[in-house]
Amino acid sequence: MPTALTKESEVDVLIIGAGPAGLMCGMALARAGVDVRIIDQRPARVSAGHADGIQPRIVEVFQSYGFADRLFQEAVQVHMAAFYNPGPNGGIERTGRAPDVTAPTARWAFEMALHQGGIEQIFLDSMASNGVEVERPIIPTAIELSGDEPTLQDPRSHPVKITLKHLEAPGGSLDTEIVHAKFLVGCDGAHSWVRRQFGITMEGEQTDYIWGVLDLIPDTDFPDIRNRCAVHSHNGSCMIIPREGDLVRLYIQLADKDVLDSKGRVDKSKMGAEKIMEVANKSLYPYKISTSHPIDWWTLYIIGQRVSNKYSVHERVLIAGDACHTHSPKAGQGMNASMNDTHNLAWKLAYVLRGWADISLLKTYELERRKYAQDLIDFDKKFAALFSGKPRTKDDGDGVSHEEFLEAFQTFGLFTSGIGVHYQPSVIVDDKYQSYASKLIIGQRVLPHMFIRAADSQPVQMHDLCPSDTRFKILVFTGNTTDMLQLKTVKGLADEMQKPEHFYRKFGHGNSSAVFEVLAISSADKMISNYTDVPPFFRSHWSKFLLDDTDMYNRTGGGGYDACGVDPHGAIVIVRPDGYVGTVAPLWDLGYLDNYFASFMTSSP
Amino acid sequence: MPTALTKESEVDVLIIGAGPAGLMCGMALARAGVDVRIIDQRPARVSAGHADGIQPRIVEVFQSYGFADRLFQEAVQVHMAAFYNPGPNGGIERTGRAPDVTAPTARWAFEMALHQGGIEQIFLDSMASNGVEVERPIIPTAIELSGDEPTLQDPRSHPVKITLKHLEAPGGSLDTEIVHAKFLVGCDGAHSWVRRQFGITMEGEQTDYIWGVLDLIPDTDFPDIRNRCAVHSHNGSCMIIPREGDLVRLYIQLADKDVLDSKGRVDKSKMGAEKIMEVANKSLYPYKISTSHPIDWWTLYIIGQRVSNKYSVHERVLIAGDACHTHSPKAGQGMNASMNDTHNLAWKLAYVLRGWADISLLKTYELERRKYAQDLIDFDKKFAALFSGKPRTKDDGDGVSHEEFLEAFQTFGLFTSGIGVHYQPSVIVDDKYQSYASKLIIGQRVLPHMFIRAADSQPVQMHDLCPSDTRFKILVFTGNTTDMLQLKTVKGLADEMQKPEHFYRKFGHGNSSAVFEVLAISSADKMISNYTDVPPFFRSHWSKFLLDDTDMYNRTGGGGYDACGVDPHGAIVIVRPDGYVGTVAPLWDLGYLDNYFASFMTSSP
Repeated sequence: MPTALTKESEVDVLIIGAGPAGLMCGMALARAGVDVRIIDQRPARVSAGHADGIQPRIVEVFQSYGFADRLFQEAVQVHMAAFYNPGPNGGIERTGRAPDVTAPTARWAFEMALHQGGIEQIFLDSMASNGVEVERPIIPTAIELSGDEPTLQDPRSHPVKITLKHLEAPGGSLDTEIVHAKFLVGCDGAHSWVRRQFGITMEGEQTDYIWGVLDLIPDTDFPDIRNRCAVHSHNGSCMIIPREGDLVRLYIQLADKDVLDSKGRVDKSKMGAEKIMEVANKSLYPYKISTSHPIDWWTLYIIGQRVSNKYSVHERVLIAGDACHTHSPKAGQGMNASMNDTHNLAWKLAYVLRGWADISLLKTYELERRKYAQDLIDFDKKFAALFSGKPRTKDDGDGVSHEEFLEAFQTFGLFTSGIGVHYQPSVIVDDKYQSYASKLIIGQRVLPHMFIRAADSQPVQMHDLCPSDTRFKILVFTGNTTDMLQLKTVKGLADEMQKPEHFYRKFGHGNSSAVFEVLAISSADKMISNYTDVPPFFRSHWSKFLLDDTDMYNRTGGGGYDACGVDPHGAIVIVRPDGYVGTVAPLWDLGYLDNYFASFMTSSP
Repeated sequence: MPTALTKESEVDVLIIGAGPAGLMCGMALARAGVDVRIIDQRPARVSAGHADGIQPRIVEVFQSYGFADRLFQEAVQVHMAAFYNPGPNGGIERTGRAPDVTAPTARWAFEMALHQGGIEQIFLDSMASNGVEVERPIIPTAIELSGDEPTLQDPRSHPVKITLKHLEAPGGSLDTEIVHAKFLVGCDGAHSWVRRQFGITMEGEQTDYIWGVLDLIPDTDFPDIRNRCAVHSHNGSCMIIPREGDLVRLYIQLADKDVLDSKGRVDKSKMGAEKIMEVANKSLYPYKISTSHPIDWWTLYIIGQRVSNKYSVHERVLIAGDACHTHSPKAGQGMNASMNDTHNLAWKLAYVLRGWADISLLKTYELERRKYAQDLIDFDKKFAALFSGKPRTKDDGDGVSHEEFLEAFQTFGLFTSGIGVHYQPSVIVDDKYQSYASKLIIGQRVLPHMFIRAADSQPVQMHDLCPSDTRFKILVFTGNTTDMLQLKTVKGLADEMQKPEHFYRKFGHGNSSAVFEVLAISSADKMISNYTDVPPFFRSHWSKFLLDDTDMYNRTGGGGYDACGVDPHGAIVIVRPDGYVGTVAPLWDLGYLDNYFASFMTSSP
């Protein structure tokens, strides 16, 4: 028990676990100016191996925080997938190639890979610039959530009491600390301590598939070693994923007897890197693979596919990442889903803590992210079964044919890329007026598209106009502002939007431009449009008024109204702080938008 | 006179002057591992104003050194030009808009702008990473070039003796230093001390045009304030160039009487920033311009257009930048030409110092760069006359019409962008076999084009394959390597190229891959090509073998053989270390390439 001398303190958000989910959360909250601490039991970040697939959507998310450039510098890009199947001569042969990801609207339509430590470092660097560092090694030893209903509903209360133990402290009372937190986010992995303290259960079961994984610099005559490969052979399945530099990751299917001990648990002493290489060579025959370098990293695992039955306790203790869902790593989904969990959560926490939104906004976190995790599990089961199943051969007509595998690979491509994620209707997803911007799907992330700035014709990417800065983006598609009739409508709209009874000022908490970013996009011709034509409200800075036109060399831009399905007479598109389309409205129904924001935001005092 | 105690030292290259020309030189030589020192008389780099236009070619050059990203972060982009002329009501009106630069093949087809200090800092940061810093404030006080012909021909000799004075030294013998240099590069500006020591004269004369320049953050209703504007008014001419952030630069034409003293020299006391703003408002009427911020920088100048009669003394003392040519700043040319001078010179100096090339290679510096400077002067005269001349109006039919001005603006666009620079035939520019790659113009910079890597289908830009790393790039367009007959030719070529009698080993100085970078580009289809098909010589690393094909989403790449005019049966294209096409050869005439390199390179011992 802590003594009276035990250090006690308060914090708005305490994050337990500094893996990708915890770090995304810590980075986003630190950047939002939230009082946040993040602890981890490991003495240092991981240095090699572990999860590494980076899907197109998470690259977009990284870009929204301003550090996709780090990925482009450090990560490898994976563009092509190749498929190998048993050939006539006892070895494998290539049956086809295809794009590695199926995501036609992705801003970057390829997969990337970087070891987990590299990804963590990007977050650590960003957090450090906001003065937040991971405190480690620290473990939580006790947790208590208490308070009556009004207390739990009051975002200013500190109902979570956590006892922490500093593992490298000098001992005595100094090694123990009590923290009173407004919110606790458990990002403490598949064996989550936080989850177990609250009796949250994982649903689903382990499968029988056992895999060896190793990262190496290969010497090989295999012609697709720099592509993602799915290999079905007479001698088992394997998967190849290129890694940064000259590294390659191999996933090798193993037999139970080679890996499990008498109690059915993985016994690493039974199977080493060398044995895995032997199996790999059997699978890849007639090609050969070896290495003249030390093995970078290796492990064994059994695929577990589970999702927790809930994601939060009274919206005060929340869990994220592997703590609430685990997946087969072969589809490269686990880490991406984990980071997207806390990307979804962070702005909501910030809004509640600032007093801008009701605490019930946090219910949308579980609603949106648990559904996705369940879909992911369903996909994973199908994909893992297909991938681990026996290939169809002349002798075995019941096996998996190449066509079945390829179809699954491509059908689920949009889903695995993260691009197709679609959040269901809620207080923050309302699709009443979808038809006014028919291709900016409400509940999906906003499309990437190039526009040009009216004042200087510089091309700008719609995604870069919607950074993760916790502001709602009010994209006002104005129609053609060189049409005097339309311009009159636009001027009237500007006057109306600035009135105190409408959302911009009503929910602006005295500083509307900190809550809302207003951007106007006209369909006018760049050669005759003047940025000075539109009302100052739609060009609070000269860079905020855009045109749907090509750049001066017709290399990019144009066609945005069509690509977004926007009505020629305009529409207002509300992009959530996490980049998802929240709702759409016609220019003439500001009242609808007032109601949209009133459903979860608090009005200015 | 220095005493016996005066510090004396040797250096391979001493650069005098740390403006853009000197810094480009110092950066490139430091990166090439050359023993280099750079001195400047100013105590610190400039902090605001001065030259700032960055043309498309110099952006490509910056990219070749790996720091174009700094420009994209810090500089403003200028995409559109607008033209204003006298309107019917006594004020100006817009007569048209056009792309700001005419350079269809530019990798980035727009102008950029950044204050000179920002550009200098990019070089300073790069040099610092190679352990070289500008020594300042130091001035040269004496220079002597001595030695007989054999001494001057021997690149190991130190025939240049320079006496330096350290302005902030404690005094006495410590403030003086004698440096013996193999080469001296004078980048000491329009009033070059180096140039005058050797009696090199400037040709050309000053014109009568006098301009006021100021950088400010404007408050204005002028609709093209973020575009480059050429304004002819009833009340004089002015030019507007957007700057980084919200800054704008104004060039305002002034009358002699307002600026000159009784001796015809510029008298800054006669015309201040406020008076220039008054003139600007007259020119821009009916639009208004003012500022609520301090003026960032301002100056007055008379346009001088001159070029020196020679660029070197025995190829041991060389001058570059404003020291050998000065231009009207309105076309944004001076700084760009200066940096391109030393970009042209640096690799040649490195080759001579390494013993890889004969000292006569340095003659091509004057040959190539003086011709360009002369052409630039000719252009500048025409442009300045057009720009400073009276506009054509109803009352003055002899003035410059908008059509005349626009035509000049566009005709010279390719030239002012730096993209159209074409070096004449010399030992390093040989166009005998131009027809084998008819659109990679020998003597011009290599075209930008996207290819994909055969091993992983990742798109790569040809320019990024040709960095400024002092190596000659041997681009082997192999034809279709999935055609067995063609593959046989390619295998034969690989065998032949590695023989000691051919250039790759003959001029490789024991480490051919440090002198030559071999890249192979096949016209094979990505879906069936194996990178392992081609001989190892053409894939020394898996990333070095490329395909002329689209990426997996058909977003980029493909059509490269056509775009480069390459014969379907292949060609070898030699790209000089500075990115210019040196020569082209058919696959069957290696002997021609041996002769090309033999004409300026020394063979391995």
